[in-house]
Amino acid sequence: MMKITELDVIKTIMDNITYRGDVVKGIGDDCAVFKLGNTYLTVTTDMMFRSTHFPDILTPFQIGMRVITATVSDICAMCARPLGIVVSMGLPTVERGFLLELIKGIDYACRKYSCPIVGGDTNRGKELILCGTAIGVTDNPVYRGGKVGEDIMVTYDIGRVYCALEILKMKEKGVISRKTFYDLWEEYPNIMKKLVEPIARVREGLLLNKYVSSCCDISDGLKKELFYIGNFEISSKKLLRVVPKDVIEFCDRFQIDPIHAALNSGEEFELLFTTKRCDDIFEVLRSECEGEAKKIGKVIEEGYYIDGEELEFGGYIHSWE
Amino acid sequence: MMKITELDVIKTIMDNITYRGDVVKGIGDDCAVFKLGNTYLTVTTDMMFRSTHFPDILTPFQIGMRVITATVSDICAMCARPLGIVVSMGLPTVERGFLLELIKGIDYACRKYSCPIVGGDTNRGKELILCGTAIGVTDNPVYRGGKVGEDIMVTYDIGRVYCALEILKMKEKGVISRKTFYDLWEEYPNIMKKLVEPIARVREGLLLNKYVSSCCDISDGLKKELFYIGNFEISSKKLLRVVPKDVIEFCDRFQIDPIHAALNSGEEFELLFTTKRCDDIFEVLRSECEGEAKKIGKVIEEGYYIDGEELEFGGYIHSWE
Repeated sequence: MMKITELDVIKTIMDNITYRGDVVKGIGDDCAVFKLGNTYLTVTTDMMFRSTHFPDILTPFQIGMRVITATVSDICAMCARPLGIVVSMGLPTVERGFLLELIKGIDYACRKYSCPIVGGDTNRGKELILCGTAIGVTDNPVYRGGKVGEDIMVTYDIGRVYCALEILKMKEKGVISRKTFYDLWEEYPNIMKKLVEPIARVREGLLLNKYVSSCCDISDGLKKELFYIGNFEISSKKLLRVVPKDVIEFCDRFQIDPIHAALNSGEEFELLFTTKRCDDIFEVLRSECEGEAKKIGKVIEEGYYIDGEELEFGGYIHSWE
Repeated sequence: MMKITELDVIKTIMDNITYRGDVVKGIGDDCAVFKLGNTYLTVTTDMMFRSTHFPDILTPFQIGMRVITATVSDICAMCARPLGIVVSMGLPTVERGFLLELIKGIDYACRKYSCPIVGGDTNRGKELILCGTAIGVTDNPVYRGGKVGEDIMVTYDIGRVYCALEILKMKEKGVISRKTFYDLWEEYPNIMKKLVEPIARVREGLLLNKYVSSCCDISDGLKKELFYIGNFEISSKKLLRVVPKDVIEFCDRFQIDPIHAALNSGEEFELLFTTKRCDDIFEVLRSECEGEAKKIGKVIEEGYYIDGEELEFGGYIHSWE
């Protein structure tokens, strides 16, 4: 059979949904958006499978945290406030200890993001499957797609998740021993931390709301998300400023191009946004949440460039054979 | 390992969620409820697996209809208006024809219920998994739990799904031939129709809103749902009035107790509600949507009775070994 990608599936869906109802934004952004009086509701859903979405090294607590973080992150991508979340679960067997830790991880993350879990559904499944659906509210939903001339910015840093997955891959392929794996974990704690306990940028998203004209979260890698902005010119020199020191060091040691790591690091959950108000953003993030964001390029008239060379569309795309 | 039921799992969840946030109603009704200005939002999620939730005889179109119907039905159970729905999918392989029909079924049901599909997530899965999350709005959310002295009522009829599943079981066990199976399907079209194309009671729920004091939908069987009302006294004579003729005939032919069929018929998606305003309800349903509802019993001070005999808690409950 022909290989079918996630993009084909989404196209089939988009082409065959004829009833659109009365929504502000349907399929095609981080969230759907409804208008209700003067408020906008943002809704997002994420389905995750143990075998494909959760690295083996995650504890059940971290799996619980992750489903909340990944879902809430899409609310942050609209610069909205999380209102609540529901989580449906497919459970293969129920080991009480596992379930307890999973729930505690969910509860921990919900509290951290002030986003209560308000419902769910439990079923038997062939493997652990978690489906989170979160609702957010905002007066001003921020969509994808920047305007020409705006600066492109990223919160905090990117690249660590890519490196952590490289460490995991080395272990799985037997390139490094179990001991070396744990040594590397100890040596690069923040790299591993970003893989096992990523953070949704709730406060940052809310603070950015009035200063940005477009926003998305980095879930499938910067490279893929950049194309949602529109046309862009990125500078590798600037991009390297959002690549933290440990990633630079790790890349140097394992002969990885740090730019490649930065462009292809998925599930970072950092916010990628465009704005003409960089200085206000530096200031508000610093003063309100000790946060930061840096410029990595600009929205341009036409083309997709890094250091003047064309960048090809890419990033993580599911496919079926 | 000990057998763990869905109820144990839900208890473990309830006991370990410590962050409740600012919600009107959390886990434990058909929907969660948020207040937003003067409006209430109702949210519900349903996860369905090909192997356990969709009888083999369902076409892909009917599978699509079903995920929307089952999810929207929980919005109806709150007597709320569906605002929109998101559907996450786990797809084992993507056969274009199957996907197309699935999407068309989803689209058809969304239009029927005026509930647009506004987003989703697509993933590889080991089997077909659909997770629907719907949002509704209402000025007056109607919860479970009736008041002493109220009449207990049910919309339209119940029992057909139980009979349809009996027919399927006979085929699977080889008790009847493939030919007899199709003969029975032809002989009892409405019985089979309710299994393959059940309907969520959107208009009825909205019409009932101001006349009822509690409401739920029948998804796990009347027997289980009755216990959510509180204490009750049901009369089998009255109950038989909501059992349609074809069910009575079928039960007679296959030596099934029609009361047992009525009590244990799941995924009916009829509304079960309590009220002191029966006559208004008869009138409004008849005049506004050619609909109907009948009394089956009363909410009482204490106990769970059918014809004076105690009824044991039951219905469909998932379990894990």
